This record gives sequence, structure tokens and C-alpha cells, in this order.
Amino acid sequence: VGAGFGGLAAARRLARQPVDVVVVDRTNHHLFQPLLYQVATGLLSAGQIAPPVRMALRDHPNSSTLLAEVVGFDLPARQLRLRHPDGSEGTLGYDYLVVAAGATDSYFGHDDWARYVFPMKTLAQAVALRGRLFGAYELAAQLDDPAERQRWMTFVVVGAGPTGVELAGQLTTVARQLRPEFHDLDLTRTRIVLVDGEAEPLPSFPPRLRAHVRRKLAELGVDVRLGRLAVGVDADGIDVREHHAGGPDGVGRTERISAGTVVWAAGVQASPLARMLGEATGADVDRQGRVAVAPDCSLPGHPEVFAIGDMVALHDLPGLAEPAMQEGCYVARVIGRRVTGRRPPRRFRYLDLGMMATISPSDAIAEIRGLQLSGLPAQLAWGGVHIAFLVGWGNRVGVLSRWAYNLLSKDRAEREMLGGVGSADLLPSLAHTDEPGNT
Amino acid sequence: VGAGFGGLAAARRLARQPVDVVVVDRTNHHLFQPLLYQVATGLLSAGQIAPPVRMALRDHPNSSTLLAEVVGFDLPARQLRLRHPDGSEGTLGYDYLVVAAGATDSYFGHDDWARYVFPMKTLAQAVALRGRLFGAYELAAQLDDPAERQRWMTFVVVGAGPTGVELAGQLTTVARQLRPEFHDLDLTRTRIVLVDGEAEPLPSFPPRLRAHVRRKLAELGVDVRLGRLAVGVDADGIDVREHHAGGPDGVGRTERISAGTVVWAAGVQASPLARMLGEATGADVDRQGRVAVAPDCSLPGHPEVFAIGDMVALHDLPGLAEPAMQEGCYVARVIGRRVTGRRPPRRFRYLDLGMMATISPSDAIAEIRGLQLSGLPAQLAWGGVHIAFLVGWGNRVGVLSRWAYNLLSKDRAEREMLGGVGSADLLPSLAHTDEPGNT
Repeated sequence: VGAGFGGLAAARRLARQPVDVVVVDRTNHHLFQPLLYQVATGLLSAGQIAPPVRMALRDHPNSSTLLAEVVGFDLPARQLRLRHPDGSEGTLGYDYLVVAAGATDSYFGHDDWARYVFPMKTLAQAVALRGRLFGAYELAAQLDDPAERQRWMTFVVVGAGPTGVELAGQLTTVARQLRPEFHDLDLTRTRIVLVDGEAEPLPSFPPRLRAHVRRKLAELGVDVRLGRLAVGVDADGIDVREHHAGGPDGVGRTERISAGTVVWAAGVQASPLARMLGEATGADVDRQGRVAVAPDCSLPGHPEVFAIGDMVALHDLPGLAEPAMQEGCYVARVIGRRVTGRRPPRRFRYLDLGMMATISPSDAIAEIRGLQLSGLPAQLAWGGVHIAFLVGWGNRVGVLSRWAYNLLSKDRAEREMLGGVGSADLLPSLAHTDEPGNT
Repeated sequence: VGAGFGGLAAARRLARQPVDVVVVDRTNHHLFQPLLYQVATGLLSAGQIAPPVRMALRDHPNSSTLLAEVVGFDLPARQLRLRHPDGSEGTLGYDYLVVAAGATDSYFGHDDWARYVFPMKTLAQAVALRGRLFGAYELAAQLDDPAERQRWMTFVVVGAGPTGVELAGQLTTVARQLRPEFHDLDLTRTRIVLVDGEAEPLPSFPPRLRAHVRRKLAELGVDVRLGRLAVGVDADGIDVREHHAGGPDGVGRTERISAGTVVWAAGVQASPLARMLGEATGADVDRQGRVAVAPDCSLPGHPEVFAIGDMVALHDLPGLAEPAMQEGCYVARVIGRRVTGRRPPRRFRYLDLGMMATISPSDAIAEIRGLQLSGLPAQLAWGGVHIAFLVGWGNRVGVLSRWAYNLLSKDRAEREMLGGVGSADLLPSLAHTDEPGNT
């Protein structure tokens, strides 16, 4: 269940086993989420980071793909309850079940904020943000009121993890690259604000690399406001409150940031399927909605049911592609050994291959097994790893060419607003209701 | 007004004149409509055929771009009435006005059909059709009822002009290329039906080339049903009635075609702005809503107002890119000569450079100044002309590489359904309400 990094790794690894594999996802694509911000900023096309699940499994004749949403589990009967694309419901039986349904956004209990902010989890959300980004400049160019014009040229990114940092850096690049096209608007007035409750960006990286990121973001002109929590969001902007530093009366100051666009790259919570599995098996579910699994990723009392990736709590692993993929491969090995009557490996061991994040087209940071890199070497490592993990040679070549062309020409090819005047792109309350998330 | 072929040609040609140019369009892109069907079928990305208007005019400092909808004319005051993206209304004054607002779909008086069919005029419509096309196969793969499965594998294209013929041919290619990915559905059962009221496809081409097209379509497996009019469309399919051949009682037989998807590539009507200009100036408006212009493309009594392209009736020119572009260049020359005090050319003369259409990746027809080509030579001419007329080198190289890659690999990169289970892609009545058209 789920064709993300974990699910796809499991399905591909099971190709070598004497089993039939059905991959169920509620979209038709495998999303390469680490490059989602490059779709949102018009650099890559949606298809380049979202190959169809079928294409990824084309050469695995023991696999099939089902576009459907999992709405429940009947673990005693070994069945999934499904909703099909035509709205009908059905069931699907299994011998082994791997649930890899990922995570979705969390608004820390303020679900009403969802209608004002642009999340960055799904392809549809990235395309909606893209329309807003380029639409905001179009609108700013025709506004007479300087304050309103400045508001539409202000973009707030909430969350200074990899997605937030990469997006904020990229937004400054967009403003610089668009400048020659706007004969009627001064794009140097663009304001990119990066907000986070933590005192540092990318807190999981070592201090030296964090310092590099802060310096780089400042050079790019990103207004980095850390130690500040979002306390209110509406159609006109966001309120943030100082978090660590208390005022004279012990309460942090609240500040208003007028902004046309607020991007939500902050909290995540596990897919609701995690809680369903917890309820069905008695497994613990933590505050982020993640279900606790056994050391072999199975659920209590159900050695045939596994859960992996962002939806599980195991060894405090980060919500990244790498642990999900390693878990997927591990679970496939367990299943393969069981069906062939061999003893499966008893527990999952994570091999930490490191972390990386990019800040601008020529700068990144990377920590690879203790080695700390920054600048061009880190950017080359970042590029190599991301190209390698894309699915399909066409996409690898396509993404590489787009990067090269962007460096040479400053052009961004994918700037289509699918709507237009009066479309949802510029009407916040309509912009992204009922966007389906990833399974 | 309008950044299509005519409007953009006029704006670019005016770059050499001592004038200020404002291009008003209700989308942010110039749409290269001849390749729209390749977006709808997942071959090209939307951005590759829809460069931003601003990018197309970046090097013309005398031009600016306005994302707005023209909602009326005040010709005596020399003003446009505009609706801005935030919903507010405003005006824009001019010394000279060029209206190039193009055409939209016509349902021959059956506007209720619009909710069941997929038109092919705008980028948003092509993306909606793409979601339906790939979604239909996903749905068919999980249906048990053979009749329903066959219905979702049936695609009817109404209209055997260039768009309809090219799309029908391409749909057979899609079915062939997807076959290895569907381990659970026999894609050879795909049925592509091409319907038109005329007795021949591409009636504007000479008989020998038309015969070539018919033969090729038959080879590709397209079910060509000509001489048949659409008389009813609903969520489950289409009713067509024989048109030329009468039955024993003089009335053609009506036939039902069950189909999951009906594409509307038939009638067009001029932008409503044509009628507004007719009412404001007393110029005739024909049955397709096109306004009659003087031999110099101006409106009666208003030598400073020009209308060009698909929205005007002049010398019975076809609704193609070429006449619109030539008219745009002509009108720019007229304006340039007038503002510099020279005598403008008295009348527009169309230089017929020929017509071409493609049927499959390796076959096309072309008529170039009397020379009739078919097969590979025509395909090469078609490819060369289309690449040449794309805007921007990035898009030229990008489209060429996609074509090459598709020939080699059979992959289609852009198959993302932005929705998913339960999304509009598979619910006909929601699929494309309120899609904005091209200005």
C-alpha cells in the first residue's frame, strides 16, 4: 500500500521472489518528493519527478498496479477495504501486507489554516503553488497600492527543514531570473521569509553546516526568522510569535507578516492508516500519528503485516527517503525468505548513508558518514544522488538537461498557470481544497 | 488583446516601432496549439508548448504584459474594460488596438454537451484530457463487467480536422506504447473512433493526401466513421446519425457508441469579443461569430482598431496559425507606418505557405505551394516547421529530445494525473467545468 520510496522499493525487491505483487496507490505516480520544490518553482515538469507506478514496474511481470484508496483493514480476514476510482468500494485479499502510506501535513491542531497555506507534499499541491507563485507577480505588476503590491511580492515559508530551506533558496533564484521579464515591476523588492520555531535551520545537520546554511541564506537575501512559531494564518498573511526569547513579561513578541503566499513546509503527521493499524492490532501510536512496529517492521500479533516509512515509529529514524527504502528492501527480504521456507533476518538495521540539502543552484551541504561537505562538492554529490534515485533514464536525462539549461539560460520552462484570470491560483480560499494527498 | 499567434506576431513586430505595446491575455502563456494533442497524450510537458508571454517578449523593452480579461470596449473613449486577476475591474487606454482573441468551442447549439466532452482548445483542457486518458485505462483495469471495461477503453474523437486526426492517430500510439505496462488489461482492445459530418477527413487537403490519411488511419486501427453527425452526448457515450446516406425513408440511421471519453475537436466559434466589436462598429458578424473587417483588418469607422486571426471573417481564410501571424505582422506594419507618418499598405494579402498534418510518429501529409508530400518527407517538413515556430530555444531542444526519446524508448514522460482516486479525472460531470478559455 503506497508507491512512495518504501512501497516501490519493496515491490521492486519482491520481483525476484516467487510471489505476486499488487501495488495500491491513490495516485498513478511514484512521487520523487525531494525535487518537488523544483516543480513548484517552474524548473522541472511534473512528469519528470512523478513517473507512473506502472512504468516503474513495467519489467516486473509478477507485479500489478491498482489505482485505489485503502479505506480500512480487515486483518483477521486478511483483506484490504478499497475505494475504486469510480467511487465503488471493494476488497482485496493478501497473504502478506506491506503498508507504506507515508505522511501528510500537520497544522498543529489548526486545521483551519489549511485553506490559507500552500502545503508541499503532493504533486497537485506543487502545481497549485506554482500557479500562485507566478500569478502573484502578475497580480503585483498591476496593483497601484504599494503596500498591496509588496504583500503579493512577499512569500513566507514556514518550516526550515530541507524542503523549506531549499524552497526559500529557490524562490530567491526565481525572483532574480524573472527580473528581465518584468519591465513594469521591480523584482528586487521580492521578500522571502523563512520562519521556524527552532533556533537553527536544518537542526539535524552538524553545527558547521548549519552555520554555512545561515550564511548562504543571508547572502541570497532570505529573511530568516527562527525561534518563531506560527500563531495565526489568514488570507492576508501570518502572525508569528517569538518562541525562545521571552519579552520583559516572559511572553514573546507577536509579529505580523503581510504576505500574499504562505507555504507550509512545517509539521507532518503519519497517514491515517497508521492509526487504523494501531487500533486493529493494539500497537502504540505516537503524537505524530505513527504506529510502533516490531524490530522486523511487523505489527503485534500479525507477523504477515508490515508497516514502513514515515508512518511508523522505529528507532527514531528521520522521515526521509533512505530509511523508507531500506525498510522496503528489508521487508521484501523477510517475505521472500518466509515464502521460500528460509529463516528471515530478525530485525531491521538502518545503514545511515548521510543527509544532504541544497540551498542555491551552486551550493549545498552534505553529511556523508561523518564527512561534512559544503559548497560545490556538496552540490555535485547532491545532484549525483538525486539523479541516481530518479526512476527511469528519460527522467534522469531530462532533469539533468533542465538543470544545465537553467544554469546557462536562466530560463524556467514550466511556468504555466493552468487557470488564468479569476482562477483559483489567485483566490486563496479556493486554491487547494480537496487536493488528494499521497497514499 | 490575445497572446496567440496573431497577437504575439503583432507585438513582436511592433518592437521595431516607436510605440509602447501592452499585450493583454487572460492566461500567462502563449499556447502553441498545433502540439496541444501531444500534451493531452503525455508526450510533451505543458510548459514546452506554453512559454510565458513575458518570456516571449523579454527582449522587447517597449512591451509589457497584462494578465487580465477584456470584458468590453469603449471605442469612442479609446478604452478597454478589463477584469484583473483579483476580480477588480479597470480600464486601459490605447491609441491603436489590435484584437486577436481567437476562437472557442462550438457545440452547434447543444451547450449541455459541454459537460460530457473534453474540448481541446486550452492548456487546462489538454491537461484534463490527459488525466482522463490515463485514468480511463486505470479504471478499466479494475472493472469486472466486460462491457463497462470496453466502454472505458473506447475513445471517441469528434471532428476529423487536423486536431482530430492527429489526436486519433496519437491515441493508437498511446495504446500500443502502454501495452507492456498493463499486466492486467489487454490494451489491444482499445477502440479509437473518429467521427465527422463530412465525407472525408481533412477536407481542405487535396484528394490524394486525403486518401493517404484514410489508409493510414485504417492501418493504425482507427475506426473512421465519416458522414455522421453527433446528435446526442451523455456521460456514457455518444449518438451519431448518418448524414449523407439516407435510409429507405430518407432519414439516416442513428447509432449509439458507448464510450468513456468523448473528445470534442469539432466546431469552433469566434471569441465573444468579435460580436462586441461588431455591435460597437456595425460590422457584420457571421454564423461562426466572426466579425467582418476591412481589407486592412480595421473595423468600420475605426481605422485605429484592428481585428485579426480566428475571430475575423476575411477572404475566407482558414482558422490556422499562419493567416493569424501574417495578419499580425501586417497590422504591426500598418501601425508603424502611420505613427511615423508614412503611407501604410492598403490591404492585407495572404501568402499561402501550405498546410500539413501528422498522423503517426512516422507519417504525415503536407501541401506546400502545390507540392503534395506524404510519409516521411512530410513528417520531416512537419517537424521542422513546428520546431521553428515554437517560442524559445529551450522549448525547441526540449520538444525535439522528447520526440527522439519517444521514438527510441516508447516512454511517455508526462502521464501525471494531478488528481487521483475520486478526483475529477474520472467523474465526467466534474471534469472540466469553468475551465478558462484562451483570450
